[in-house]
Amino acid sequence: MTTEIQANLNDVNLDAVAALAGAIQETPEKGRSVWQAEVTWKGAFRSEVKIRDFAPIPSDEPAALGGTDTAPNPVEQLLGALGNCLAVGYAANASAAGIAINDLRIDLSGDLDLHTFLGLRPGHAGYDGVTVAVHLDADATDDQIAELHRTVTETSPVGHTFSRAIPVQFDLA
Amino acid sequence: MTTEIQANLNDVNLDAVAALAGAIQETPEKGRSVWQAEVTWKGAFRSEVKIRDFAPIPSDEPAALGGTDTAPNPVEQLLGALGNCLAVGYAANASAAGIAINDLRIDLSGDLDLHTFLGLRPGHAGYDGVTVAVHLDADATDDQIAELHRTVTETSPVGHTFSRAIPVQFDLA
Repeated sequence: MTTEIQANLNDVNLDAVAALAGAIQETPEKGRSVWQAEVTWKGAFRSEVKIRDFAPIPSDEPAALGGTDTAPNPVEQLLGALGNCLAVGYAANASAAGIAINDLRIDLSGDLDLHTFLGLRPGHAGYDGVTVAVHLDADATDDQIAELHRTVTETSPVGHTFSRAIPVQFDLA
Repeated sequence: MTTEIQANLNDVNLDAVAALAGAIQETPEKGRSVWQAEVTWKGAFRSEVKIRDFAPIPSDEPAALGGTDTAPNPVEQLLGALGNCLAVGYAANASAAGIAINDLRIDLSGDLDLHTFLGLRPGHAGYDGVTVAVHLDADATDDQIAELHRTVTETSPVGHTFSRAIPVQFDLA
């Protein structure tokens, strides 16, 4: 297998990833990244999020929750972000390990008790737990797949944001 | 102010919210909700998330991270979910308190060190911290706004998913 083929395994631009990792190893401050989003309320339970120059992405709630059901709701978006992050992790780490991914689908499910959100009792308003089922078809041994899976789950930015407590500072501007 | 006007303050369907809250108070099991998302890898760092019957929403990474920069990335989506959730919280609780919202914009920013994601060292791959600046123009006193702000931040499902550790179970299906 030539270096050129390796570098484009799974269509991943490993050279770019390696260049970034190299730059950060040389200058650790380059590892610091800042991400932003701007949300605008659109009436009722509708809002939209603007990220960089991309088109605004709508958000709403189902009718049963008082919404107008025009878009996925915030807790569903949260699951989507986790699945998308894991997909990047599999693509990056499989490519680095020389593993070709044939197919990858990730099913996510989360249980949430509505009592606290609805103001019926104080407590935990967020997900009680999330389950992730990874359907991975790849040219690799079971041991390679298990190692890939371990690496991905141990290095997922969104996964860690779920599984650890992140300080959130709210300011009324 | 008539009940009818109250019930549609901020275009929020308070009757639906009250009906759900009432049903859950009567039968606590009705407070349990399950949310789902399905993510499909599309090559390189691109993936898309399917939620209920809505059109798939794309995800990608910036070129500097090895992506093809066609859509917001997962950690940006995470901030969007938080802002959208807070917007629902403000709309719901302002309406319940009889406060008209004239304008609401929420700026979110998160700091993330890339070392762990890139495999350069073990540790925390997620956000180190997130800041939320709420720009709220509403017909209310400062005390009412402060109380509204307190209620929203104490009952936000996505906010709590950030600020608390949520168990995530990964299975290779």
